[in-house]
Amino acid sequence: MASSPELKHPVKSFAWAARDKSGVLSPFNFSRRATDGHDVQLKVLYCGICHSDLHMIKNEWGFTEYPIVPGHEIAGVVTEVGRKVQKFNIGDKVGVGCLVGSCRNCNKCAKDLENYCPAQILTYGSPYTDGTPTYGGYSDIIVVDEHFAIRWPENFPLDAGCPLLCAGISTYSPLKYFELNKPGIHIGVVGLGGLGHVAVKFAKAFGAKVTVISTSAGKKQEAIEKLGADSFLLSGDPEQMQAAVGTMDGIIDTVSAVHSILPLIDLLASDGKLIAVGIPEKPLELPISSLCMGRKIVGGSTIGGLKETQEMIDFAAKHNILPDVEIVPIDYVNTAMERLARGDVKYRFVIDVGNTLKST
Amino acid sequence: MASSPELKHPVKSFAWAARDKSGVLSPFNFSRRATDGHDVQLKVLYCGICHSDLHMIKNEWGFTEYPIVPGHEIAGVVTEVGRKVQKFNIGDKVGVGCLVGSCRNCNKCAKDLENYCPAQILTYGSPYTDGTPTYGGYSDIIVVDEHFAIRWPENFPLDAGCPLLCAGISTYSPLKYFELNKPGIHIGVVGLGGLGHVAVKFAKAFGAKVTVISTSAGKKQEAIEKLGADSFLLSGDPEQMQAAVGTMDGIIDTVSAVHSILPLIDLLASDGKLIAVGIPEKPLELPISSLCMGRKIVGGSTIGGLKETQEMIDFAAKHNILPDVEIVPIDYVNTAMERLARGDVKYRFVIDVGNTLKST
Repeated sequence: MASSPELKHPVKSFAWAARDKSGVLSPFNFSRRATDGHDVQLKVLYCGICHSDLHMIKNEWGFTEYPIVPGHEIAGVVTEVGRKVQKFNIGDKVGVGCLVGSCRNCNKCAKDLENYCPAQILTYGSPYTDGTPTYGGYSDIIVVDEHFAIRWPENFPLDAGCPLLCAGISTYSPLKYFELNKPGIHIGVVGLGGLGHVAVKFAKAFGAKVTVISTSAGKKQEAIEKLGADSFLLSGDPEQMQAAVGTMDGIIDTVSAVHSILPLIDLLASDGKLIAVGIPEKPLELPISSLCMGRKIVGGSTIGGLKETQEMIDFAAKHNILPDVEIVPIDYVNTAMERLARGDVKYRFVIDVGNTLKST
Repeated sequence: MASSPELKHPVKSFAWAARDKSGVLSPFNFSRRATDGHDVQLKVLYCGICHSDLHMIKNEWGFTEYPIVPGHEIAGVVTEVGRKVQKFNIGDKVGVGCLVGSCRNCNKCAKDLENYCPAQILTYGSPYTDGTPTYGGYSDIIVVDEHFAIRWPENFPLDAGCPLLCAGISTYSPLKYFELNKPGIHIGVVGLGGLGHVAVKFAKAFGAKVTVISTSAGKKQEAIEKLGADSFLLSGDPEQMQAAVGTMDGIIDTVSAVHSILPLIDLLASDGKLIAVGIPEKPLELPISSLCMGRKIVGGSTIGGLKETQEMIDFAAKHNILPDVEIVPIDYVNTAMERLARGDVKYRFVIDVGNTLKST
């Protein structure tokens, strides 16, 4: 038994894992490495349920290795520190997002873009430097190099805040990189899910006029009254769409289903930018003429580097930007996954790991 | 007779025009407006044959109105100036590119981006402000507002230089706007035609390492020895393409046939930019994941504003950048079109209008 890969480390740990492509999660005993060198160990208090967790437990992207412990929107408290740790002390509140490792040596890492490092190590389902698989935050504890831990802002909620570590940085980073963070510009947000609803909040905090673009008329009231969007565009209504042609400086497209981007490109003004942060399984149709006639671009972005993730969460704390979450106990996680699959959540499930995950 | 639209103006002019979608060009008598206000009249000396001329004379884009006089790479000498003209004197050498009008009032015009003004007036085949159609440079004279005339650099050849007014600015502008003009970066150029061969020269002048990407192995020697490219990539060779994955900072894609851009996106390093300046008739397949995983973009661009066109030609003169041209008489123009259609030109035909266009 002790030779199985999940039990090779010295520290006992407990989580919920999926064992096959049914994606059903159930209690799982495994081990974590000792807290050495630059490592910090944290007790996980909260972990968001990202849509990628759902894809991964069902092996929908085709590279899942079981057992898999999902979770990369992790907030907790430091319980041990390695000898060389400088950033953290026991008792500090910290966050861990999508990454727990990178080469630290390439030109991407040198520019604090660990998220584009070819040797990046994902928080779960990746081989770590010691050859063992990484296990995520649906877990009692996690051990990470301090470089990949985020200092939690004072008086900032751990429960509602933890989804920022993926959904937050995934929208904050492209808004900044593509210069869509300037006051007074007009930003469209396509899709009002985990990423989309946070994109609205960041864009508003940057001072933009924000329009939510959705296939569902039922989301209008929520978008405007609750999330603070300035306007709402029903993508299936040709008149509304026509009236908005050429009005937007940027669009954050969070939709990961295959969809038509021509109408979105048409919404852009000249020099406008359509940025995809959701990844459809198949290629989309790109009308080159629409790009050329307005010097427009279609770009993509994925999460962000560690330095920017820290900046993002500090910005969120300063501007009181919090995802809207539904806190659930760990034994609700399979039901939460079913609801997530049908879009039945406003807008992020967060597992109350600290209070509900009990070892068996 | 005098009431036909092409004869309503006071100044007799002579050109070669296409009368129907056969695209065959033949002598054409028409009229130009009097040189008034800010107008300058020029005697056309040389006019490049752009690939769009071929599309337009055959109505391949579906909006040609006949008769059509093509030509928007015009170099000539000023023969008359209107009362309000400030920039030019009789005898000055000037160029006229793709535009002869814009609203001069919108936020694009205010930023010297007349090429993205919704009310732009093309040099041929557009309705002018007086309601008459514009006629291009396969013509003895042309009358344009001085704003749309380019001051020709001293000692810069009119014949070889005139294609810069379209092919040149179409590649210079995106290299600058998308920040692909920095020394030491690696630029790919796809397609070695009128635009592509000038893109190579501009990118080299900006200090880039330039790789020509082509389907035709026969172009390697020419690309490197004659045009000054640093390397050559045969797009149909999987090994060559694989070896170049992730190496380019930007790619100028001049191909207007439908083609796969996935291999081109793969050639880009993180933050790389694929810029289309050729416009395929149908949408291309865009793999969003490839964009997201490297924060890459696909953009488009079309010609440039008047201020930048002046800057471009001054830069070309300073750096001795000239298109490679084949000078032909006007009565060769139908043969030139046939050769252009099959790619049989290195790399631009230029009509010697001044010496060969004789009124009948």
